[in-house]
Amino acid sequence: MELPSKLVENAVNEMAQLPGIGKRTALRLVLHLLKQPLEQTEGLTNALATMRKDIQFCQTCHTISDAEICGICANPSRDKAIICVVEDVRDVMALENTGMFKGVYHVLGGKISPIEGIGPSQLKITSLVEKAKLGVITEIIFALSSTMEGDTTNFYIYKQIKDLAIKTSTIARGIAVGDELEYADEVTLGRSLLNRIPFETSIRQ
Amino acid sequence: MELPSKLVENAVNEMAQLPGIGKRTALRLVLHLLKQPLEQTEGLTNALATMRKDIQFCQTCHTISDAEICGICANPSRDKAIICVVEDVRDVMALENTGMFKGVYHVLGGKISPIEGIGPSQLKITSLVEKAKLGVITEIIFALSSTMEGDTTNFYIYKQIKDLAIKTSTIARGIAVGDELEYADEVTLGRSLLNRIPFETSIRQ
Repeated sequence: MELPSKLVENAVNEMAQLPGIGKRTALRLVLHLLKQPLEQTEGLTNALATMRKDIQFCQTCHTISDAEICGICANPSRDKAIICVVEDVRDVMALENTGMFKGVYHVLGGKISPIEGIGPSQLKITSLVEKAKLGVITEIIFALSSTMEGDTTNFYIYKQIKDLAIKTSTIARGIAVGDELEYADEVTLGRSLLNRIPFETSIRQ
Repeated sequence: MELPSKLVENAVNEMAQLPGIGKRTALRLVLHLLKQPLEQTEGLTNALATMRKDIQFCQTCHTISDAEICGICANPSRDKAIICVVEDVRDVMALENTGMFKGVYHVLGGKISPIEGIGPSQLKITSLVEKAKLGVITEIIFALSSTMEGDTTNFYIYKQIKDLAIKTSTIARGIAVGDELEYADEVTLGRSLLNRIPFETSIRQ
C-alpha cells in the first residue's frame, strides 16, 4: 500500500502495530482523525501518553490502579485471606461485575506461554508465593482461562504452594447458563458431569 | 464498564471515539500498550500528533500531500485536462493501483450527506467548478461511490458545469470481474445490461 504522505505512512505504521488492526483499518482511523478537529487527536495522544507514563500498579495485587494500593485491596470489608488468581485487569473487572466475590485478587499479568516467550519470571508469581508463605491466606482460587497455558500456569503455582496449609480451588468448568447441551464440547460436558453438584445447592444459587 | 483507573478510563474513552472501535476493543488496545515498552506508545502518539499538526493538502487537487503540490499534480506526464473526482485519498490510492488513469484527481473530502450534516460548502466543490471555468479541462470523470449521497454529489456538481464545454462521465457500474451473475443485485445487473459494451472492446481490455 503506497501512501501519498510520509506523515500518514508513519501514523498508519504505528497504528497497525496494535493487535487486530491491519494497515487498511489503520488508514481509515488515521483519515478519520484528519477529518476531525485538531483537539480530538490531541485528546487521544495526550490520554495515551499520560496513561502510559503515569500508570501505577497496586503493590499488593498488581492490578492497574491510580494509587499505590488499589481500591479492592484498600477496602477493609474484603477478605484478605481469600485470593483469586487472574490473568489481567479485565478478569478482575469481569469477576467484580458478578458481585459474588468478597476476597481479593492477584493479577499475574499473563499466562506461562513458551510459544509467546512468556516464562514464569515475567509473571507476578514470586510475590504470590511469598504472600502465601506469610500464613495469612486460607484459600487460593485459580481463575485463569481454561487453556493449555492457563492449566500450565495453575500447576506451576500449585507445585510451589501445595505444602502450605492453603486450600486451592479452581472456578467451575461446565455448561454456561442458558447454553444447550447439544452444542457443548465433550470435554466441558464430561467435566460438568464429573463435577456435578447437589441439586439442592443449585436451586439456592 | 467500570475501570479501576481514571488514566485508563480516559485513554479508553478517547480511543473509543474512533470509528468501529467500541469500549471493549479500546480497553484491549490500551492494555496492550501498557504491556509494551514505553517507546511504542511514544511512537504512536508522536506519529499521530505530528501528522495531525503538519499534514498538508495539495493546493490543486486537495489530496493529502507532504508538499504544497502533490506528486500526481506535479508530474508533467499526467494529463491536466482530465480530472477524476473522488471522495478521499483512499480512492486516489485505489485508482492509482490500477495504473490505468493518466489524468489528475480532485478530492472532494466527502459526499453531500444531509443525514451526517455535510453540505456542499464543506466539500471542495467550489474550487473544482472554478478550475472547470478556466477552460483547460476537457473531461471530468465522476468516481464517487454509487450511493444516494454519491449520486446527489455528482448531480450537484454536474448542474454547475453542464453549460461548459466539458465532457462528463462516470465510472462504469456493472458486474465485478470474477463475480457470478446470480449473486448480483438487480439494479447493478440491469445497469450492466443497459450500458453494455461491444464485445470487441471487452476482449481488448
